[in-house]
Amino acid sequence: MEPLDEQQLAGGLAGTRRRRAQTGTKERMIRAAARILSREGYARLTMERVAAESGVAKTTLYRRWPTKAALCMELYLEVAGNELSDPDTGNVGSDLKHVANAVVRLQTKTVAGPALIGLIAEAQVNPDSRPAFLAEFAERRREVTRLVLNRAIERGELRADTDIDLVIDALGGAVTFRLLQGHAPLTQEFANALVSLVLNGCKPGPDEQQENG
Amino acid sequence: MEPLDEQQLAGGLAGTRRRRAQTGTKERMIRAAARILSREGYARLTMERVAAESGVAKTTLYRRWPTKAALCMELYLEVAGNELSDPDTGNVGSDLKHVANAVVRLQTKTVAGPALIGLIAEAQVNPDSRPAFLAEFAERRREVTRLVLNRAIERGELRADTDIDLVIDALGGAVTFRLLQGHAPLTQEFANALVSLVLNGCKPGPDEQQENG
Repeated sequence: MEPLDEQQLAGGLAGTRRRRAQTGTKERMIRAAARILSREGYARLTMERVAAESGVAKTTLYRRWPTKAALCMELYLEVAGNELSDPDTGNVGSDLKHVANAVVRLQTKTVAGPALIGLIAEAQVNPDSRPAFLAEFAERRREVTRLVLNRAIERGELRADTDIDLVIDALGGAVTFRLLQGHAPLTQEFANALVSLVLNGCKPGPDEQQENG
Repeated sequence: MEPLDEQQLAGGLAGTRRRRAQTGTKERMIRAAARILSREGYARLTMERVAAESGVAKTTLYRRWPTKAALCMELYLEVAGNELSDPDTGNVGSDLKHVANAVVRLQTKTVAGPALIGLIAEAQVNPDSRPAFLAEFAERRREVTRLVLNRAIERGELRADTDIDLVIDALGGAVTFRLLQGHAPLTQEFANALVSLVLNGCKPGPDEQQENG
């Protein structure tokens, strides 16, 4: 998203000026929501506070996002879009570790973590909002891993009958589980070990079986 | 939990009678909460409605459970306690499939599903309640799988360095992920395939590599 540039604004056409001003307003509202979310979490984020902190009229805020869940969804997708990319290293293990680490970083170091927690909670307590939100949300999140796994199957690195959705759920599920339950830390080591588990399983390899018993 | 027995009540001592009456009251409140939860979900469950539907005074209800989350926690643990047991079949694959299927059944066919969804949501939006609730909740849920995995390591069915908490997160996470996001069905086939994935990984076995690649 381009920052506002005073010179361009002054020299531009009226339409361009209006569009840029709108972009600036949207950016201000999103940034204000991100600051509140980082500082105080989803429960204390309200549309009133976003309006006050961004200096934008409440009607303008509501015109763009009817609910705080919709606002958080846009925030989440914007941050996730910047963080998640297809690494395409040529090796399925490296690719998946790259993605898993990016997801862990996204959920622990960026505002996407509290946004995701809030969105999941909201979708459970407001059942009406659930299907549409989760369909879009889950789908966007799965795209990168699906690309990685399909390439790995084509290269013969994974079994041809690998259930891609199952692998995505095992990887994404474990990360989300720790994020939601908070029973164990979300670390790089965890992300890497999770990828190894899903690729290799936890049975002894043929060498280990011969050597050890 | 023993059902009320009118004859025993009539013939018993005063203390026994009082204890039985208390058990009956608790049972009535729990059953009323379960009916509301099954019919209408966590969002529409209120302490007022539990009191009205069970015919128990609100003060009695609040004396036992200060919040609806506490009530749902007890409900969840009661149902889970009945459904989840250590199968001890002598084989790690059979044991894990038994547990995974029990968890899927618990979350899709019993009132534990909506109770769990509500509790997870509540813990996110009311951060103060989070640590205590999730510590107890997560711990109880992990016990059975931990028993199964430790036995399998002792028998040499799993690698000695298997990270038990990671395996539990991969199994439980994928199930919870589907429950929360609702993007794909929670079925027996899914539970069995998930166990195979975590045990065997998704790389081709040595035979397949020689034959096919």
